[in-house]
Amino acid sequence: MPTPIKPGKLISVEGVDACGKGSQIAAIHSHLEAAGHTVVQVREPGGTPIGEQLREVLLDSRNQALDPMTELLLMAASRAQLVAEVIAPALARGDCVLADRFHDSGHAYQYRGRGLPLAHVEALENMALGDLRPDLTLLLDLPVSTSLERMGHRGHATGAEKDRIELEAGTLFERVRAGYLERADQEPGRIKVLDARQSIEAVRQAALGHVDALLEAARNPVPASLRRHSLNGPC
Amino acid sequence: MPTPIKPGKLISVEGVDACGKGSQIAAIHSHLEAAGHTVVQVREPGGTPIGEQLREVLLDSRNQALDPMTELLLMAASRAQLVAEVIAPALARGDCVLADRFHDSGHAYQYRGRGLPLAHVEALENMALGDLRPDLTLLLDLPVSTSLERMGHRGHATGAEKDRIELEAGTLFERVRAGYLERADQEPGRIKVLDARQSIEAVRQAALGHVDALLEAARNPVPASLRRHSLNGPC
Repeated sequence: MPTPIKPGKLISVEGVDACGKGSQIAAIHSHLEAAGHTVVQVREPGGTPIGEQLREVLLDSRNQALDPMTELLLMAASRAQLVAEVIAPALARGDCVLADRFHDSGHAYQYRGRGLPLAHVEALENMALGDLRPDLTLLLDLPVSTSLERMGHRGHATGAEKDRIELEAGTLFERVRAGYLERADQEPGRIKVLDARQSIEAVRQAALGHVDALLEAARNPVPASLRRHSLNGPC
Repeated sequence: MPTPIKPGKLISVEGVDACGKGSQIAAIHSHLEAAGHTVVQVREPGGTPIGEQLREVLLDSRNQALDPMTELLLMAASRAQLVAEVIAPALARGDCVLADRFHDSGHAYQYRGRGLPLAHVEALENMALGDLRPDLTLLLDLPVSTSLERMGHRGHATGAEKDRIELEAGTLFERVRAGYLERADQEPGRIKVLDARQSIEAVRQAALGHVDALLEAARNPVPASLRRHSLNGPC
């Protein structure tokens, strides 16, 4: 008997700044709606009344004394609340949930980027998510030099200031990118790496291809008797 | 060479409602000050500007949707901030820190009382506290029937309502008390169980005796060469 398919699907989109996440999320959202799905889009921290209160604590400029561990715990608390109050009920209703960054960001930014202990980051991931994980994750991968170049067009820093910011950002971005790619190596079935140097249209086509494959697989699940012959499932 | 003694001492006082914690904490506070110590008294959740903001989120009656896991994470975040911002600096200055409930409450209330997974409660304890643990914990132990009887004198419930509340509270208090005593069994060197059925004065004398023994041991540490002969250290 095939494993029951969850009614709804959870899709997360990950990547460093300037990777083009916003455009692709908008495209996937429209695509899913056009195919008749109800789409719930979420973003962290926040997304619930309690999460928004925690977002205020996290972003309050008076909270300079915020300890890195407190910050990690507050991010996890916001995520736990989002899962319990929004994501799990939406999936149970059969909706598609589209997450602008999700738990892979914890691995990339908090463990690889900020150097917080892996055991802590993983324990908090389990506490916040329980058994829930994305069905599909699109990682918009970008070399750090391209990311910084694109951000240069957005920012207003000049000269020496720009150099310092870019140097710091560059070192951080290298670690975050490595964290994301490490995660993709560990879970090639779930995480699809897209080359975000391509045109928005080319990335869009690749992204929608993976989304369609996920929905198709949900409609036509591989029988259990055949599944063991497949090293990587369809999603 | 003896292990270096931490400059300050952290003392926590634990116990269920109506165990007489307030009176004993006041007595210990005065006693330590009379002995020339600077005392920092802390209470959770709260105790820092960030912790007070989290306390508001936890106690906000509009937050009925608060998920139990979110609550656990917020309690841990408040504790992590209190440790980083108040307790660790106070101990480093050589002050005595007196905590009205601390991490043993997590074990008693969240694990035993509410049935949250032990692995989660323990992982959060490690995240919030790092290497820091109380030097001495006084557990004011009270049979549940005595606790409820004392609370009856404080509350205003009557008849059937009182019965229901007491039944629920009784079941919870039994689990919490068992959690505390389990913890005391595991760490008899640190946790001293006091019989809180005694008079306030009798409990006070026992409590101050343990506090004096801790301070005395800090002044005259047992040499490492002798320490292995002692099954339980002085504190």
